[in-house]
Amino acid sequence: MSGEEPISGIGPGGRITLAHGGGGTAMRDLIERVFVATFHPEGTPPLEDQARFDLAAFAAHGDRLAFTTDGFVVEPLEFPGGDIGKLAVCGTVNDLAVGGARPVALSAGFIIEEGLELERLRRIVTSMAMEAARAQVPIVTGDTKVVPRGACDGLFITTTGIGVIRPDYQISIAGARPGDVILINGSLGDHGAAILCARGDLALDVTIKSDCAPLHDLAAALLQAVPQVRAMRDATRGGLAGVLTELAEASRVAIGVDEAALPVRSEVAGVCEILGLDPLYLANEGKLVAVVAPEHAEAALEAMRAHPLGVDAAIIGKVAAEGRPGTVTLINRFGGRRAVTMPSGEQLPRIC
Amino acid sequence: MSGEEPISGIGPGGRITLAHGGGGTAMRDLIERVFVATFHPEGTPPLEDQARFDLAAFAAHGDRLAFTTDGFVVEPLEFPGGDIGKLAVCGTVNDLAVGGARPVALSAGFIIEEGLELERLRRIVTSMAMEAARAQVPIVTGDTKVVPRGACDGLFITTTGIGVIRPDYQISIAGARPGDVILINGSLGDHGAAILCARGDLALDVTIKSDCAPLHDLAAALLQAVPQVRAMRDATRGGLAGVLTELAEASRVAIGVDEAALPVRSEVAGVCEILGLDPLYLANEGKLVAVVAPEHAEAALEAMRAHPLGVDAAIIGKVAAEGRPGTVTLINRFGGRRAVTMPSGEQLPRIC
Ligand SMILES: Nc1ncnc2c1ncn2[C@@H]1O[C@H](COP(=O)(O)OP(=O)(O)OP(=O)(O)O)[C@@H](O)[C@H]1O
Ligand SMILES: Nc1ncnc2c1ncn2[C@@H]1O[C@H](COP(=O)(O)OP(=O)(O)OP(=O)(O)O)[C@@H](O)[C@H]1O
Ligand SMILES: [Mg+2]
Ligand SMILES: [Mg+2]
Ligand SMILES: [Mg+2]
Ligand SMILES: [Mg+2]
Ligand SMILES: [Mg+2]
Ligand SMILES: [Mg+2]
Repeated sequence: MSGEEPISGIGPGGRITLAHGGGGTAMRDLIERVFVATFHPEGTPPLEDQARFDLAAFAAHGDRLAFTTDGFVVEPLEFPGGDIGKLAVCGTVNDLAVGGARPVALSAGFIIEEGLELERLRRIVTSMAMEAARAQVPIVTGDTKVVPRGACDGLFITTTGIGVIRPDYQISIAGARPGDVILINGSLGDHGAAILCARGDLALDVTIKSDCAPLHDLAAALLQAVPQVRAMRDATRGGLAGVLTELAEASRVAIGVDEAALPVRSEVAGVCEILGLDPLYLANEGKLVAVVAPEHAEAALEAMRAHPLGVDAAIIGKVAAEGRPGTVTLINRFGGRRAVTMPSGEQLPRIC
Repeated sequence: MSGEEPISGIGPGGRITLAHGGGGTAMRDLIERVFVATFHPEGTPPLEDQARFDLAAFAAHGDRLAFTTDGFVVEPLEFPGGDIGKLAVCGTVNDLAVGGARPVALSAGFIIEEGLELERLRRIVTSMAMEAARAQVPIVTGDTKVVPRGACDGLFITTTGIGVIRPDYQISIAGARPGDVILINGSLGDHGAAILCARGDLALDVTIKSDCAPLHDLAAALLQAVPQVRAMRDATRGGLAGVLTELAEASRVAIGVDEAALPVRSEVAGVCEILGLDPLYLANEGKLVAVVAPEHAEAALEAMRAHPLGVDAAIIGKVAAEGRPGTVTLINRFGGRRAVTMPSGEQLPRIC
């Protein structure tokens, strides 16, 4: 904007300097004019050491507070379908959503490498603000550290979320019971495949979009239709295999997965084939797994499919009436069975 | 312990590997047996995507929820008087405490460099757990990311805290009024000087202990004596100068500081003299500045001094009846006046 003063302390080439983490004028300027001004376009009260909320207002929405945190270290910082900022908002919104919580507020801690371009930071902060607005959850407090060149790679963001859970929602990873039905809201592995392709070092001439999306509204629609949802989890690192093995263990049940029912995009299947990866283990950033009693399965599927983020929703398996607790079995269209084990060994670093 | 199985995925030399951030068995093992087992020695319920709290229990302690976050990137990870883990607990407890909040719970997000020694991580996690127990605030949720060698330096921790504020506490950085008295609970710059000396590249043959400490109990004692405390802030990056210039600006007042009343340890003064630093600008991690009405000054000082973390508490200045709003003036024993400006330029990186 013409006439606007430059942010104080910016180095040659429009870059963040150590002064932006020094607790002085440059840091204040960056915080007030880049972070806070973007997160609160309507203007803000003085910056206290902590954000404050009326507890009475919470009580109107539920009886429990949910509290969750995630760090984001994805590389590259920007990729098809999102960037580290969008990811940081969605990831934490989703960890609230899968507990049945209505997101109330987020905090955002930034660790920035000296030399990051201010314009890049602005794009990422703007993307966070847009995503937070879309999820109707304000970013109310934060922190800004700058480390010398080489002490971190570009930018890491840690977001923490609080939310409120309605008294009638009782969702737990230990809640699955024999006979229950397992659903997912769409295709597997889009995020993992998108990041791998975006890194460019695979010489794959294909662009895949990350599925990065905030799931609170889908979760709310599902819970509106089926308040009795037993278990819910977003399938991030470790993919669907990670979620199902944890679910089987925590609920002490055996899970059977119908391989033919697993939604996988053809581009993702292609990338997996070339690289010898399994979409079952690839990270997602906009997918949740829900477990419901059999009598609620149809209503749950319908509610998911009616939502823009659930058009490809599918029933993918069920909790076996018997079988060894803690096991997950993939059943192919000919009835062949294969054990799904918890992911192990070296995984894909910096996928989220 | 004899007979205990090693943590899965540990590399040669007892080091963290990328598998510990991969969402699979190695990560689960590290989280359950190192983080969660240390933070909850009494055993835990299944690990959900979010921690949950009864809102009714909060209402018994106050009417507002406080929410705050800080990232920690200190180098070295361990130093006289503390380590990054203790710092991460105290820093966030203190940002709650200075709002008058009783700390309720913390989250902890870890970003670990591949190759960090497991034993070192254990020491730091144990130190966090001890500090959290001392502050009676549980670490209830967390996140673990591992980045490849060179993508971060050792370990970064981001802690977020929630707390509850009593209805009668109305503390704000904008709350100082003409005539108010300004207090601090002890000596200036111990943390900053401790880190500088610990780095060893200064060839200073002196060991200074960081003042790193949780201030919630001191703050509670002060508020018990003087519930009308007007403003309170912990003096971290930017030091006392940072806090007072922000206070003067946010409250639109002029502040006068009595130079002779500023408590500074002789070792810290010595280090500052050698390096050309000013203790007024050095970081603290166990110091809070409180602003009270003149009629409460003695009671506030007494309450602070009666607490182990306030034995060197002092009245260090006051809010002037007149003077240019936003200014801070240092007045020496001969009446000489010098403007205190907000810290600027390149600061000491990775001090906290
Ligand atoms: N990246 C950010 N996004 C949003 N708000 C931020 C960000 N960084 C800082 N803030 C806000 O700016 C204010 C000052 O933050 P700052 O980190 O300086 O305070 P502090 O935590 O008390 O100090 P320190 O981090 O040195 O302990 C707070 O209100 C904080 O919430
Ligand atoms: N360093 C840690 N300290 C304490 N608890 C942790 C730590 N890391 C993870 N946890 C806990 O372990 C459980 C699983 O964490 P995890 O990060 O795998 O879940 P998630 O956030 O749903 O997944 P992702 O991080 O891939 O999005 C959660 O209950 C979390 O609070
Ligand atoms: Mg998560
Ligand atoms: Mg999750
Ligand atoms: Mg901070
Ligand atoms: Mg702080
Ligand atoms: Mg503070
Ligand atoms: Mg996590």
